[in-house]
Amino acid sequence: MLGVSTSADVGYLEDTDAIVRRLARIEGQVRGLSRMVSDEAYCVDVLTQLAAVSRALDGVGLKLLSDHTRHCVRGAVERGGEEGDEKVSELLEAVERFARTR
Amino acid sequence: MLGVSTSADVGYLEDTDAIVRRLARIEGQVRGLSRMVSDEAYCVDVLTQLAAVSRALDGVGLKLLSDHTRHCVRGAVERGGEEGDEKVSELLEAVERFARTR
Amino acid sequence: MLGVSTSADVGYLEDTDAIVRRLARIEGQVRGLSRMVSDEAYCVDVLTQLAAVSRALDGVGLKLLSDHTRHCVRGAVERGGEEGDEKVSELLEAVERFARTR
Amino acid sequence: MLGVSTSADVGYLEDTDAIVRRLARIEGQVRGLSRMVSDEAYCVDVLTQLAAVSRALDGVGLKLLSDHTRHCVRGAVERGGEEGDEKVSELLEAVERFARTR
Repeated sequence: MLGVSTSADVGYLEDTDAIVRRLARIEGQVRGLSRMVSDEAYCVDVLTQLAAVSRALDGVGLKLLSDHTRHCVRGAVERGGEEGDEKVSELLEAVERFARTR
Repeated sequence: MLGVSTSADVGYLEDTDAIVRRLARIEGQVRGLSRMVSDEAYCVDVLTQLAAVSRALDGVGLKLLSDHTRHCVRGAVERGGEEGDEKVSELLEAVERFARTR
Repeated sequence: MLGVSTSADVGYLEDTDAIVRRLARIEGQVRGLSRMVSDEAYCVDVLTQLAAVSRALDGVGLKLLSDHTRHCVRGAVERGGEEGDEKVSELLEAVERFARTR
Repeated sequence: MLGVSTSADVGYLEDTDAIVRRLARIEGQVRGLSRMVSDEAYCVDVLTQLAAVSRALDGVGLKLLSDHTRHCVRGAVERGGEEGDEKVSELLEAVERFARTR
């Protein structure tokens, strides 16, 4: 965690650490996939493992989407005006993209 | 490709190399995601990048599914009998799992 | 749209009509699928048509999600307090379910 | 079931009936969605129901994919030659399309 955040942002920082840890685990899983393919593991076993990595990545995506909605989007809507409109539109585009790539 | 697999199954090995390279790139992309989160990049940008990683991973999954079908499943069906049945059932389960995790 | 919903919420009603029309079209498409299967159309053609119906249904889901976010969720967040929290949580669960079933 | 099939195709015919029944149920579910929207049911409830319809449609897709693989593709591969190649390629395209639209 190299992000410089103020202490008023602690709740968010904790989440950042958790997400970085989850991504480190996913990185290791991708390396594991690579090893399986190099070792010519049985295709169906590789596919099963790949599905697990894909699910883990989705989990991180949903967490980011959730934090973003609860913090940025919510704050912007509470402040009202154009910024609220923009954040809601942007959120809906992100949801659509997220759903499409699943 | 008529299901006859010799020890020098070069075509398969070449595919293996290509898949390992694609996975190495995905590993780098996951590391990039981690950096973005650490640097507290804008959430929606992280989500966009995560969607790209997810798509790349799907691409590898489809390639594995395709190679598996063209080689193992096809060969087993050509040889006929119970092995063919088993490989076809196993393939359909893999397709279902793959579709579910997308 | 600032969360003030009167009994003459015409904008919403118009959307309702459009959604009902889209669902009527989807109903017809499902009937068409049934006819293809009864007529023993080629499997791959049925699958291609089924994918189109699936996409159309997703489109309606995204439209509902979008209207819901722009109206209910947004209004609740603007009014603030617990209702805002609840609507945001509920929205995120709906997004997750939507993404899962795609 | 209006499809005219020979008696040698009975196993397939039974499946056709089952699939037509599943599609009739899905048609009814889509009609139910339309009614919910007309009655201005709560958005999140409509989305939950829509997810169920989407899952049911996917189920039919997987069944078609499965029957197609077990019958057409398998038969073509057993007969060998170019037809086998074509059917396998076509199957893989159908799998890809199916996965994409989920």
